[in-house]
Amino acid sequence: MTGKDLLGGIEAGGTKFVCAVGTGPDDLEVAAFPTVSPDESIRRAVAFFRDAAGTRLSSLGIASFGPIDLDEKSSTYGRITTTPKAGWRDFDIVGSVAKALSVPIAFETDVNAAALAEGEWGAARDIDDYVYLTVGTGIGGGVVVGRRPVHGLLHPEIGHLQVERRDGDSFPGICPFHGNCLEGLASGPALAKRWGCPPESLPATHPAWELEAQYLGMALCTLVCTLSPQRFILGGGVMQQEGLLPAIRRNVARILNGYIDRPELHDAIDGYIVPPGLRSHSGVLGGIFLAGQLLQRLKQ
Amino acid sequence: MTGKDLLGGIEAGGTKFVCAVGTGPDDLEVAAFPTVSPDESIRRAVAFFRDAAGTRLSSLGIASFGPIDLDEKSSTYGRITTTPKAGWRDFDIVGSVAKALSVPIAFETDVNAAALAEGEWGAARDIDDYVYLTVGTGIGGGVVVGRRPVHGLLHPEIGHLQVERRDGDSFPGICPFHGNCLEGLASGPALAKRWGCPPESLPATHPAWELEAQYLGMALCTLVCTLSPQRFILGGGVMQQEGLLPAIRRNVARILNGYIDRPELHDAIDGYIVPPGLRSHSGVLGGIFLAGQLLQRLKQ
Repeated sequence: MTGKDLLGGIEAGGTKFVCAVGTGPDDLEVAAFPTVSPDESIRRAVAFFRDAAGTRLSSLGIASFGPIDLDEKSSTYGRITTTPKAGWRDFDIVGSVAKALSVPIAFETDVNAAALAEGEWGAARDIDDYVYLTVGTGIGGGVVVGRRPVHGLLHPEIGHLQVERRDGDSFPGICPFHGNCLEGLASGPALAKRWGCPPESLPATHPAWELEAQYLGMALCTLVCTLSPQRFILGGGVMQQEGLLPAIRRNVARILNGYIDRPELHDAIDGYIVPPGLRSHSGVLGGIFLAGQLLQRLKQ
Repeated sequence: MTGKDLLGGIEAGGTKFVCAVGTGPDDLEVAAFPTVSPDESIRRAVAFFRDAAGTRLSSLGIASFGPIDLDEKSSTYGRITTTPKAGWRDFDIVGSVAKALSVPIAFETDVNAAALAEGEWGAARDIDDYVYLTVGTGIGGGVVVGRRPVHGLLHPEIGHLQVERRDGDSFPGICPFHGNCLEGLASGPALAKRWGCPPESLPATHPAWELEAQYLGMALCTLVCTLSPQRFILGGGVMQQEGLLPAIRRNVARILNGYIDRPELHDAIDGYIVPPGLRSHSGVLGGIFLAGQLLQRLKQ
């Protein structure tokens, strides 16, 4: 890679770190490694950027798992806050990277960043208001309104919205904070614990997937009622399951029951609930997008 | 009233129409009458404006119950769409008023408009992202992000988000579309049907109110997770019940269970979940605000 405005992106996920240099989907150099302790994870990320970009990095965007403090006026800006993830609570991720690399850093939730990348290069290029949802080790959602990520008080925490249990479902959920939030009932680890095996080993005809589609469908209906997005982009490891996306579409149409009379919610639902345009790179490209946006702002 | 930029506002509610002329909360001339048939309701509204403003009305804002078509490019823009309210389905409310009064008309959901008025003159003057919720004959929510109302695919329909029934609650709900949406379980008519008497006749110690606070608290938690507002403003007839607002605050703090570690969600919750600053006039002042905004745009 050449050119002086080389951008860096980090997708700091609960399970893995993805780091990249480049300027967009077409010139991306990517590395990924498992998320270990904060110090060791940052050390490996920094080593990647030194190796891949030397001193040519103009800015870097961090797309982090949360909850995180996005308020630039706050004394804890740039930190991961109340995560249950061991060792990461209150970790100053922005400060640690900034100290090591001395570049301007942009900071956003992993899912808001992924949503922005999908808006720039992926499945949401033609719309202004949409939701990016990832269903994997955790469940999280990025919310874009008017092409800007929603923060508000903190940032959306879509994985923790409550869904109504199906009659007879006595699985206690796996979230340490809430009995029946979406993440507690429908994330990858919830599937594994409920059915006693890795989700990817469950055949497409297993009843697990109909229940999964029902819970995710309910969550999408809640988002239709609260946010009225113009599209849903559904990514993450669990969404790789064949047949899950169509089953979610069927559940959304069934639950809304015609109340919102728009073709997107029945006949045209295949274009309303879609997979990511950037495949598994939405998150790290979100970091790259944020880095580019920050650089533009600094140049003004 | 004098001055050439006299503004008009209509709050078209499912139960009553509120009409006003003026420029803001301090010079409002208001009239209200029950919502009857579309033609008769519009006739009365038009008569009020002719009487109160003659030909001096510069613009008018309609804040309407929904669902409504807000898409200016749509052939059904300005209409009330799939409402179950008898006689109102597909009624062209903007066209009817425009034909009679020949003034520029702005159009918005009643709750988005009320939210905007609260942002201009009321309880949200200091923030950018917030939710206005009304709990009365129906339940509806206006969502403001970056000081602009959220539309997206259509507009939020917060009354129709599903809440988890309390164990043992077998009340079927009153919404013809959904068994257990918020409006079906917790609106004024739902309270009346569930308990067999008008809600205002239920004493403050009646268990009805704890259940009501639980369902509304759940809905607010869902909104915290999906929208992350900086404040909630709770209005409408049902919210007049003494003790209900504090009970909702307690339920929100209890359900979120510390996951989102912000003082607004525990110690400072009294300033986070608040009554309207404009009392019962948020809706019609929303109409006035929209009229003023439209006029500014037309003058540019």
